[in-house]
Amino acid sequence: MSPKPRARDLDIPFQGTPAQHNAIPDVDGVTVGYSTIIEGESARKGVTIVHPRGKTNHDPVFAAWFPFNGNGEMTGAAWVEEGGFLEGPIGITNTHSVGVVRDTIIQWQAEHDAIFQKWSCPVVAETADGWLNDMNGFFVKPEHVVKALEDAESGQIEEGSVGGGTGMLCYEFKGGSGTSSRKLPEKFGGWTVGAFAQTNFGARYQLTIAGVPVGEHIKEHPVWTDGENPYKESGSLIIVLATDAPLLPHQLKRIAKRATLGMARTGSLGGNGSGDIFLAFSTANPNAATGGEQGIAELRALDNERLNPLFAASVFATEEAIINSMVAGEDMTGHNGFSAIALPHDKLREVMRQYNRTL
Amino acid sequence: MSPKPRARDLDIPFQGTPAQHNAIPDVDGVTVGYSTIIEGESARKGVTIVHPRGKTNHDPVFAAWFPFNGNGEMTGAAWVEEGGFLEGPIGITNTHSVGVVRDTIIQWQAEHDAIFQKWSCPVVAETADGWLNDMNGFFVKPEHVVKALEDAESGQIEEGSVGGGTGMLCYEFKGGSGTSSRKLPEKFGGWTVGAFAQTNFGARYQLTIAGVPVGEHIKEHPVWTDGENPYKESGSLIIVLATDAPLLPHQLKRIAKRATLGMARTGSLGGNGSGDIFLAFSTANPNAATGGEQGIAELRALDNERLNPLFAASVFATEEAIINSMVAGEDMTGHNGFSAIALPHDKLREVMRQYNRTL
Amino acid sequence: MSPKPRARDLDIPFQGTPAQHNAIPDVDGVTVGYSTIIEGESARKGVTIVHPRGKTNHDPVFAAWFPFNGNGEMTGAAWVEEGGFLEGPIGITNTHSVGVVRDTIIQWQAEHDAIFQKWSCPVVAETADGWLNDMNGFFVKPEHVVKALEDAESGQIEEGSVGGGTGMLCYEFKGGSGTSSRKLPEKFGGWTVGAFAQTNFGARYQLTIAGVPVGEHIKEHPVWTDGENPYKESGSLIIVLATDAPLLPHQLKRIAKRATLGMARTGSLGGNGSGDIFLAFSTANPNAATGGEQGIAELRALDNERLNPLFAASVFATEEAIINSMVAGEDMTGHNGFSAIALPHDKLREVMRQYNRTL
Amino acid sequence: MSPKPRARDLDIPFQGTPAQHNAIPDVDGVTVGYSTIIEGESARKGVTIVHPRGKTNHDPVFAAWFPFNGNGEMTGAAWVEEGGFLEGPIGITNTHSVGVVRDTIIQWQAEHDAIFQKWSCPVVAETADGWLNDMNGFFVKPEHVVKALEDAESGQIEEGSVGGGTGMLCYEFKGGSGTSSRKLPEKFGGWTVGAFAQTNFGARYQLTIAGVPVGEHIKEHPVWTDGENPYKESGSLIIVLATDAPLLPHQLKRIAKRATLGMARTGSLGGNGSGDIFLAFSTANPNAATGGEQGIAELRALDNERLNPLFAASVFATEEAIINSMVAGEDMTGHNGFSAIALPHDKLREVMRQYNRTL
Repeated sequence: MSPKPRARDLDIPFQGTPAQHNAIPDVDGVTVGYSTIIEGESARKGVTIVHPRGKTNHDPVFAAWFPFNGNGEMTGAAWVEEGGFLEGPIGITNTHSVGVVRDTIIQWQAEHDAIFQKWSCPVVAETADGWLNDMNGFFVKPEHVVKALEDAESGQIEEGSVGGGTGMLCYEFKGGSGTSSRKLPEKFGGWTVGAFAQTNFGARYQLTIAGVPVGEHIKEHPVWTDGENPYKESGSLIIVLATDAPLLPHQLKRIAKRATLGMARTGSLGGNGSGDIFLAFSTANPNAATGGEQGIAELRALDNERLNPLFAASVFATEEAIINSMVAGEDMTGHNGFSAIALPHDKLREVMRQYNRTL
Repeated sequence: MSPKPRARDLDIPFQGTPAQHNAIPDVDGVTVGYSTIIEGESARKGVTIVHPRGKTNHDPVFAAWFPFNGNGEMTGAAWVEEGGFLEGPIGITNTHSVGVVRDTIIQWQAEHDAIFQKWSCPVVAETADGWLNDMNGFFVKPEHVVKALEDAESGQIEEGSVGGGTGMLCYEFKGGSGTSSRKLPEKFGGWTVGAFAQTNFGARYQLTIAGVPVGEHIKEHPVWTDGENPYKESGSLIIVLATDAPLLPHQLKRIAKRATLGMARTGSLGGNGSGDIFLAFSTANPNAATGGEQGIAELRALDNERLNPLFAASVFATEEAIINSMVAGEDMTGHNGFSAIALPHDKLREVMRQYNRTL
Repeated sequence: MSPKPRARDLDIPFQGTPAQHNAIPDVDGVTVGYSTIIEGESARKGVTIVHPRGKTNHDPVFAAWFPFNGNGEMTGAAWVEEGGFLEGPIGITNTHSVGVVRDTIIQWQAEHDAIFQKWSCPVVAETADGWLNDMNGFFVKPEHVVKALEDAESGQIEEGSVGGGTGMLCYEFKGGSGTSSRKLPEKFGGWTVGAFAQTNFGARYQLTIAGVPVGEHIKEHPVWTDGENPYKESGSLIIVLATDAPLLPHQLKRIAKRATLGMARTGSLGGNGSGDIFLAFSTANPNAATGGEQGIAELRALDNERLNPLFAASVFATEEAIINSMVAGEDMTGHNGFSAIALPHDKLREVMRQYNRTL
Repeated sequence: MSPKPRARDLDIPFQGTPAQHNAIPDVDGVTVGYSTIIEGESARKGVTIVHPRGKTNHDPVFAAWFPFNGNGEMTGAAWVEEGGFLEGPIGITNTHSVGVVRDTIIQWQAEHDAIFQKWSCPVVAETADGWLNDMNGFFVKPEHVVKALEDAESGQIEEGSVGGGTGMLCYEFKGGSGTSSRKLPEKFGGWTVGAFAQTNFGARYQLTIAGVPVGEHIKEHPVWTDGENPYKESGSLIIVLATDAPLLPHQLKRIAKRATLGMARTGSLGGNGSGDIFLAFSTANPNAATGGEQGIAELRALDNERLNPLFAASVFATEEAIINSMVAGEDMTGHNGFSAIALPHDKLREVMRQYNRTL
């Protein structure tokens, strides 16, 4: 249980109705595990794992990715694109630890008889933590990955400087891990959509919350922009969208694309250095990958005309997950004495009130 | 010259600095032509032409497209994607007139010795005008296309219910044609970016202007949503982005993708029925398609690290072009007595003031 | 019924087993219609229509496209890609008649209450016939399109200089329309795959039939290459693949991609000027687009592990359809006295024997 | 220097003219390094490194990828696609060692001040060696990667069971590493194209060499197909194409796509399990990534009309590199006593003669 306040606790008026925990595990089966490394002055990193069906159910899920700005990495994406399936856990870490996370996931899969084909190409994504963390310290070790794989939980997961998001920055405030969910009314299917964000992107002046130009009002302690060049920008954004709606891979690609709109609502202009890479999966259609008799799977899929409520939920949940990652942040000092401040809650409330944008 | 007020005249606080006319022809060489058909009760349509280098200069331009939501048409996109060049004028019309516009452009090119390869696959895009207009009336004829090709102008082009945008709706207000531009400071290259929008998308409740939830406050005369289903939505958005910055095709794809962020800032959730298709081209690098000696063209291209100001300009110009298309609208009645209202200027100002969002 | 010999009649050893007519209508429901225009000296063109479920069944089919070399046009591809459905007949014609074919299909759909969404973006592809035909003659009229739509037939369809393929060239011989099919053994599902080719590509020296370098031996009457430049090459290749196997859109993209391998087996090197664009659809899963209760469609889909026999069938059928288009050719003289010869059957047999490659 | 015979030494009639060593380092600057691990019964693997400009020149090269069948991995591809640059060495290894190769390349880059942006997302590709090798043995260690990075050489590199290709199978014979090159005549630009192949794909019955159905004649010692199911197939194919021709990223994508045609000429039907992933880069345009004054790079690019000879060279070099990887093979026994035979040279010559296909 997270004792930290979340964006809604600050009366930010998001759209749509969250499911029970306003978190990605609201999609039944999804679990999230973290391994957080904060050691000495220079190690501020970690590993996040998302199990689509929990750690003991290795049934592949339909999935799709969308790289809005591919200045980053998501291993395993080629097979997701080609075959339509995500065949194991998703790892999220920092840029220079993708390899160890990937190989360790395979090893863990091999030990648990969880490799679906004869080989495994796990999905591992990243954002770059080269400010608070010593990027070339290579602090993530196999045991950290195993811990995140094993410790994954459902319910109200932690946010902020945990797991892969430990050393991240967002709009030049402390960023990290954030989550949110939406539950559709029964008349629109009653489906749940969950979003998980690892945030490490955006220039301060861009930051927009529920339409309010927050970044223009809270200017203290910028990180990468300066008076000379407000266009300097770095980092990346990874979004994972989960749903229990029965969607096919080509429909999930449309869901993944909608993360772009959620990101845009927080002010991002899609900077060159930002690896904005999104993944969507559906927990519906169990055994879709194995086929039944004669290798034919019996599937269900939603009519394209019914996707709009899911698109809306995906946009809203993405937006809120990003803001949650910042609201959960705390000031941090790290490598070479570099420091970042958390988005100040009181000042944020004040700016929101100034624009008459509170609940 | 347009005597109509534009969004800036209503004190809407957009970001960035427009070039001279705040219109796509601010990119040197670009001209825009319209052919507007308003006849009887049922004909509310037309044709828009964008000449990348004006109507007499047929030198291909580097270009790229991005279909955010491909429920629509942009002919010619396959060669833009493969070959990296846009080899002639761009047509924009209504969905069921794409063919006649396409073939007539070819005929016009043949007559003007303007076919670059031995054949021509023109770029023609569309939005669906099946409310104010009789969609199956097929009112667009070759002469309308030729008129738009021939009458294209530079400077401050018309907006609102003209050309291809004549019968369009946007966020359930009158939509149509809109434009905007941005000029970068010299220290960021001094480049110009121009946007042209044909708008026919969005549900009322989504409409956001400069961060303000305008659609939640101006609810009168909705068109496709109703109390039962706020998710109903239709139409499409075509964005053309022009720049004089020296960008290669793969860089222009990144520019085209940024139109997504401009669209998102106006509130769109990317509805299933919306063909949101974007094209970007650069007027730099003349003769890139013809090569020089030994077929080798001498080119210039901007460093990826310098793209952020252009990304920002593309997002801002797209956003403003969309809002301009609505501000220029006037109430219209059409096919079967169907009617749409223009975005009411006074009410808009009032809502913006309510949220303290005016210049 | 075609009285012309086909490639198999010449003892060419293709792989795999054809279905009943060795033609695309072997996939149940598929019909093909032609409109052929051979008039005076300069008109050598026409229209081909493929109805996925016959002309009176407008139920959309799952589909996907793959543009191996996008120097050509396939309208409607954006929605096939995004939505996963092909919502009406496929048109194939010459490059400069795509528009009239497209708009006329819409008009025909409107008259037959066959527009699935509120609008229609038909799939129309092309190859360029600027040698035997006066490319800018614009001879295709709406009535030709309607005739092809209405006259579509099942069974053993015509090949050679008919329909859209009328004025085409292939490996510098007379090309045009060709078809083939494969039927899998019951143990591999018993599915049928049908291919339809409109051929207008390839340099003579490249022509390979069942592995034999035929083009190196039959050098008479070249068209676009010359002694100076064997790399000159023009034209395009359109392939339509149909199957009754239950495949999802992302799986059909994989089928469409395999047309590349079929093309490669005939010797093509994928010349710059060749618009090699492929479409695949599945007639399985009726009513997939309409959903059932609550908008959820009940679907069936084949396991990825079962796709290999379908991939093989797609490659083999594509290869044979291309060769069939040439074997059915006859010498033709056209625009400005330009002439092309048919692939000479006797000489072909002789070359095949020389390499011990006959049945 | 390789003392092994190569395909040309067996009088196989390939098309086109190789450059000096008929190997990828014929493209000036390219070097290749191997680390080969053959230990005990179960370790048959290794690492291959391709340095685009040699190990001490870290200037990024224009590049593009094409995943014909994405059942595999190529890390780093997202940024190649988005940014147009390959910013460091290419690694090729077995599926379950991609991570260690990736992270070690970063570490090596960090130590050599060779990270171009602030972070690095190296390109590492793989094929699966789960027959001769114990796939989950994780035998590749950082020191093996460093050795391959450091030992890279120009000239006539080794082929067969070396580096990443050590434990691979191709068409159910011993596969591995192969290379080839083509030099264009001066009148077509005089450019060089080099291909490197790591081969681990194909069913025996498919194997075709210079058009001859070799696999139908040499049936002994099959590996994954059996009498029951000739469609069983596994493995993958990685192709790297290098050229000194001045090509832009979108043109290099076209080069990468042509590897598909080279693969097809060896008989592949693109099996579901085969990760057929191709990368192309150009060593022309030094300093393209850094820009000059004002961040504007001066570039050269070939006219699209001049690409055909390069397309042909890419197809031919790919085809020959694949066959070379097999001709260089030797019988191998490995994990669990599994064994594979080399393509028997005498029998191959005999089959080629039977079809009159020798030099």
